[in-house]
Amino acid sequence: MCELLGMSANVPTDICFSFTGLMQRGGKTGPHRDGWGITFYEGKGCRSFHDANPSANSEIARLVQRYPIKSDIVISHIRRANRGRICLENTHPFTRELWGKHWVFAHNGQLAGIKKEPLVHFKPVGTTDSEYAFCWILDQLMCKFKGPPKSPLKLSQAIGQMAASLNKRGVFNMLLSDSTCLYTFCSTKLYWLTRKAPFSKATLIDAEMCVDFKKKATSKDVVTVIATRPLTEDELWHPMDKGEFQVFSKGKILTQKRKAKI
Amino acid sequence: MCELLGMSANVPTDICFSFTGLMQRGGKTGPHRDGWGITFYEGKGCRSFHDANPSANSEIARLVQRYPIKSDIVISHIRRANRGRICLENTHPFTRELWGKHWVFAHNGQLAGIKKEPLVHFKPVGTTDSEYAFCWILDQLMCKFKGPPKSPLKLSQAIGQMAASLNKRGVFNMLLSDSTCLYTFCSTKLYWLTRKAPFSKATLIDAEMCVDFKKKATSKDVVTVIATRPLTEDELWHPMDKGEFQVFSKGKILTQKRKAKI
Repeated sequence: MCELLGMSANVPTDICFSFTGLMQRGGKTGPHRDGWGITFYEGKGCRSFHDANPSANSEIARLVQRYPIKSDIVISHIRRANRGRICLENTHPFTRELWGKHWVFAHNGQLAGIKKEPLVHFKPVGTTDSEYAFCWILDQLMCKFKGPPKSPLKLSQAIGQMAASLNKRGVFNMLLSDSTCLYTFCSTKLYWLTRKAPFSKATLIDAEMCVDFKKKATSKDVVTVIATRPLTEDELWHPMDKGEFQVFSKGKILTQKRKAKI
Repeated sequence: MCELLGMSANVPTDICFSFTGLMQRGGKTGPHRDGWGITFYEGKGCRSFHDANPSANSEIARLVQRYPIKSDIVISHIRRANRGRICLENTHPFTRELWGKHWVFAHNGQLAGIKKEPLVHFKPVGTTDSEYAFCWILDQLMCKFKGPPKSPLKLSQAIGQMAASLNKRGVFNMLLSDSTCLYTFCSTKLYWLTRKAPFSKATLIDAEMCVDFKKKATSKDVVTVIATRPLTEDELWHPMDKGEFQVFSKGKILTQKRKAKI
């Protein structure tokens, strides 16, 4: 299995604190030593860092940890390989362009038989179930909508339905973004919390680090963090239900709490 | 204008030395301060670093300079903006997936009227002529070949013809790769050199740095470096002709020296 970390914020925010917690799980406090990656959106643009080395020992992970990259949407993943060998092309997050937007995807789980689904426009470069599923989602969106849909709700609904359909094949915990929203699906395990005024202190579980967000954030900041397991010991993390699909934008939750129809 | 740097090698090789020279030109020994980027192929996978800050002052550029990433194909670019504002989505190299391969592209020049060409499958995320031209090339390849062509020569010829056609619109110095070959087109200025046994010393023009490749390389290593302007003062750089198209693979030049039909 793998671990996911996502962020949605209403102002460009760095994720150094949360990432410091996650990276320990890649070979130190957790067994996810088969590579890691992180993508930062900055408006329409995005930049990714990937490494097939364990994050706990990665020179590039240390840069990401100490160099504050301000971003409104972040997707990160640490990998414990089950399908697909350990190499750069199998390292999440995966990225493709659709409708003039960068789409970014990370996944935890396995999907039985996914590779039997035909693909038309998007093809995987590596050999993971995950990248295949990502290509399938984008292919389906391209077929369904022809061009970019005007209604964000219709797009969300379509993605939610596809996630629920993929989930039938096994385990499908997902983070997906199109640079506007962060789409999340909980198959077995996913938590989120929103930090906003009044801010308080937070202490990492996986590293000796505490941040007082009162000193770091402004009163208007709204930042939601999504993770496979809570990263801090003194904040209230909301567990998502199995089969729950949620969309976040500018730090806020957009969708109502409901189980996807499975 | 911008500056390009490419590498093709028969064994995974780091580009720290050449990159150290190039990055000085991004705000120190050269005026190309409007962002920079570099993509490293490692087999089918690739990883990119992008920064809209000048490379001479970039924390991420310093990491790339001192952390030896071993790669068989590298494409790098430092930008002096002429079309498209300074932001992450306008920062080269650009990446797209076609036929299950990562394609990477960097360009120096302007292309009058390129945005009037229709695009079907690939759409630009940013606003540069360069990314538009890249999308156009991939669109044309997709239309022309349906699937990945079996003949590498036919693919090279098609790319060479497209490059020559784009060059008619202005200035089109190009580095392009599909993870197998490095395709290069010289519109106005592009140099290359091959380092192989017997190796010798090389001294950077833009920084006080000298490397003795006799101590660094093995007798079987073959590494070709391509750059807008020579990066070292004591090696023989081959200037490409205007309109010349060359393909490199595993450090060696594949194409014969000829001018593209314009």
